[in-house]
Amino acid sequence: MIQYTPIGVVHSPFKEPPGTPIQSVAATDIEATIEVYAEYLAGLKDIEGFSHLILLYHLHRVQSSKLVVKPFLGNEVHGIFATRSPGRPNPIGFSIVRLTKVNGAVLSIRDVDILDQTPVLDIKPYVAEFDVRRVEKNGWFAQNLDKLATTTDDGRFT
Amino acid sequence: MIQYTPIGVVHSPFKEPPGTPIQSVAATDIEATIEVYAEYLAGLKDIEGFSHLILLYHLHRVQSSKLVVKPFLGNEVHGIFATRSPGRPNPIGFSIVRLTKVNGAVLSIRDVDILDQTPVLDIKPYVAEFDVRRVEKNGWFAQNLDKLATTTDDGRFT
Repeated sequence: MIQYTPIGVVHSPFKEPPGTPIQSVAATDIEATIEVYAEYLAGLKDIEGFSHLILLYHLHRVQSSKLVVKPFLGNEVHGIFATRSPGRPNPIGFSIVRLTKVNGAVLSIRDVDILDQTPVLDIKPYVAEFDVRRVEKNGWFAQNLDKLATTTDDGRFT
Repeated sequence: MIQYTPIGVVHSPFKEPPGTPIQSVAATDIEATIEVYAEYLAGLKDIEGFSHLILLYHLHRVQSSKLVVKPFLGNEVHGIFATRSPGRPNPIGFSIVRLTKVNGAVLSIRDVDILDQTPVLDIKPYVAEFDVRRVEKNGWFAQNLDKLATTTDDGRFT
């Protein structure tokens, strides 16, 4: 058993899962803030130098995990580890967001697909030289990415 | 307090922190395996369709976290959330690796910067349309990326 403690919380316009964007690339310009708890403020030094952040967070509204799921974008079932669905054995969410302002312990972010009140576990700088890969195989997503812009959460994992 | 349970373990050639690559892009062709525990096997269905995976794992050898650190690549101190250093409040590691083979519950992977016996928390498919961003600002990394190929872990966080 591994234990973590939230370092902050997301304040976003999405109060409930239904209607929430399913990826941050489908949430362009949606604004939110991360309130980093006071005791972690020193950890933000120099973060304003980055245009994009990786957020790891606890998907706190997920109530069940299944090993095989029908994801939002697909019509067939896939193993949970071959999907980005929230109902995972360890419900850790991952989003890349734009950092637009730092005001003390409050980070203003854009391109947000995260529910309000989500506990934040970690913030890392997104660095193109580390995090951009040339993908050869996109699995089942290859036939389904055209639905991304018009698909939102429908509450199936909560 | 948030609790997670490992879904598998990494078997890698790196037995100790000193000498371990500090990013997977600096670990080209280093081979390792992920042993997914039997009870999670069904979650791997269709994972072989992806060329790259996102691994989230517990940095089990980290013994202390500091909010301000001198990272491997830099000569100045930065807030931990402006670095990729392992000594984080919640020591969750993030690596993008290549998937080369799936044999039952054993995933063969390459480009591995992960210590042997690392507990795996989550596996997600890396999808270019979701995970590639055009970065405008690389913060303090901009002046230090030339050192990436020649810099390895020196044990400072363990």
